[in-house]
Amino acid sequence: MAAAAAAAGTEEVPNRRVILKRHVTGFPAEDDMEVVAGAARLAVPPGSAAVVLKNLYLSCDPYMRGRMSKHDRPSYVPDFVPGEVLAGHGVSKVVASGHPDFKVGDHVWGITGWEEYTLIPNPGSLSKINHPEMPLSYYTGALGMPGLSAYAGFYDVAKPKKGDYVFVSAAAGAVGQIVGQLAKFTGCYVVGSAGSDEKVNLLKTKFGFDEAFNYKKEQDLNAALQRYFPEGIDIYFENVGGTMLEAVLLNMRVHGRITVCGMISQYNLEQPEGVRNLLSLITKRVRMEGFLVSDYLGEYHRFEEEMHSLGSSQGAMLASNWSPLPGSNVMLRRFQQPCSACPIHLVI
Amino acid sequence: MAAAAAAAGTEEVPNRRVILKRHVTGFPAEDDMEVVAGAARLAVPPGSAAVVLKNLYLSCDPYMRGRMSKHDRPSYVPDFVPGEVLAGHGVSKVVASGHPDFKVGDHVWGITGWEEYTLIPNPGSLSKINHPEMPLSYYTGALGMPGLSAYAGFYDVAKPKKGDYVFVSAAAGAVGQIVGQLAKFTGCYVVGSAGSDEKVNLLKTKFGFDEAFNYKKEQDLNAALQRYFPEGIDIYFENVGGTMLEAVLLNMRVHGRITVCGMISQYNLEQPEGVRNLLSLITKRVRMEGFLVSDYLGEYHRFEEEMHSLGSSQGAMLASNWSPLPGSNVMLRRFQQPCSACPIHLVI
Repeated sequence: MAAAAAAAGTEEVPNRRVILKRHVTGFPAEDDMEVVAGAARLAVPPGSAAVVLKNLYLSCDPYMRGRMSKHDRPSYVPDFVPGEVLAGHGVSKVVASGHPDFKVGDHVWGITGWEEYTLIPNPGSLSKINHPEMPLSYYTGALGMPGLSAYAGFYDVAKPKKGDYVFVSAAAGAVGQIVGQLAKFTGCYVVGSAGSDEKVNLLKTKFGFDEAFNYKKEQDLNAALQRYFPEGIDIYFENVGGTMLEAVLLNMRVHGRITVCGMISQYNLEQPEGVRNLLSLITKRVRMEGFLVSDYLGEYHRFEEEMHSLGSSQGAMLASNWSPLPGSNVMLRRFQQPCSACPIHLVI
Repeated sequence: MAAAAAAAGTEEVPNRRVILKRHVTGFPAEDDMEVVAGAARLAVPPGSAAVVLKNLYLSCDPYMRGRMSKHDRPSYVPDFVPGEVLAGHGVSKVVASGHPDFKVGDHVWGITGWEEYTLIPNPGSLSKINHPEMPLSYYTGALGMPGLSAYAGFYDVAKPKKGDYVFVSAAAGAVGQIVGQLAKFTGCYVVGSAGSDEKVNLLKTKFGFDEAFNYKKEQDLNAALQRYFPEGIDIYFENVGGTMLEAVLLNMRVHGRITVCGMISQYNLEQPEGVRNLLSLITKRVRMEGFLVSDYLGEYHRFEEEMHSLGSSQGAMLASNWSPLPGSNVMLRRFQQPCSACPIHLVI
């Protein structure tokens, strides 16, 4: 009787949620967030075009760190609000819908809440998953926001040519590993940097990078780049900022391109580091250009089909490192903070 | 008899020259350079395609500071060599020629020596002056390298649109003053910064900038830019680097462009400053691109004609601040160092 009422959306079901307790400064700590008990209705408001999602996979992405801070002037995405649920990219199943494009049972990806069920008043920002035969977790990676970031940042911003020398930092990250594979697919030479030998090994053996190195083991990043790029770098896919960017600037080739996707080395610093060597932009006529994946959402379904074909033919592309953790007892691992158990797969 | 021999190039004439005594570190000092007596033959080696130039105007340009330093790895232009004559852009008259494109009496501009007469073994880098009816000094400014820099950097790199908000630093400099005029010609709103009230006044009254400010009088560059650009900046024409660039990055509009032409605030520093706020390149999707005027020399004569027409119709463009100093008893004023007398007009 209660189950039937819940299915009809007339009563509430439990809904555990992860809320931000306070704005974060410096390195996030576990108690900046809290898992709280909530409740959800499995129905949309009458007459609305909303959907209710059951969240299956939630992706913990670096840009979320920025939303945890309080900004004096508005950032490009709103700051998280203390006391409210965190939001991020995820893969979900539609359990109630007032929207003609989404029916109950559809799988979607897009911005959702860090909770079991989320009411999305305007589902226009969600993308329907057209290949539900693929493991759904891929839509938090190669087929989702990180994949679209890699695709847009590499092809549209960096404009690669066959034979280009490509360097990717944070190359074992969700975006970097796809950039490396796209670079190989395009006929480029590609080197990645990462922060552990395990990741370096993964880059060379699984993702097909020509070379990779552990930046933490390098005394002199400039010397490391000279070693891997004796002819210089045509394309730098920037995910880290700071001293790596300084070293890269010294090693760019004439008419090189730097796609600025992220600067994760800076996100937990109270005072960001200054970057020297920008004069190289002139002497080497370098184009350094930032982008946001949100500008490319209109091209998502074209991308989805291309990546699906590419993935099927290339193998590794989709079978990437982005699979759900067994269970979900580790959360926010990217920030090295274990968190409480949560009933949703967290992809980190 | 001696005069006839000199005219025929069979004997030497005196040739005062400015040589670099030592590589410069930090701020250049007068005794880093020296005026020495030399001698020149007014004839080209038999069978060569060389020309001999009588130098009329020599331009003291900021990029020359870089050539005065010793670089561990080669820069985009060779370092000056201690004991050898300085080289820079100038306007000259051909006094002997073995080259079919240049005849005696032609006026040219291009890289020449800081001396009275210069033998140019390969004159391919010189541009013949097609409008000798103009004051020749204009070819060190609006019609020469600074003009071509402004034109290429503004139109080809920044790609302005009517109504864009444009900010130019070092706006009273040889390049900046032309950028401001091109921006107004294109229908943009343009603000310039400079380092004295006299220059600020010049920007507003002579060069047609909508607004201008003295950056030395601003406690907070970010606040100054917010005041002049409440809607933000579409195009920043970068001539200075350092803290100004940091402040500009916070004030860029979405899809803004930063043309990197120079970073004069850094040229005399032994340790260049780091630039913060590069994360704005992502959040505002900004393109920051460097260029070298040397890449555009092939388009010079098209530029010369366009600027000549523009200058004739616009007035101020060519009648810019670039006229020869009366006499030439002040040299390297840009570095605040008086130098010995020299018989050539020095444009600084």
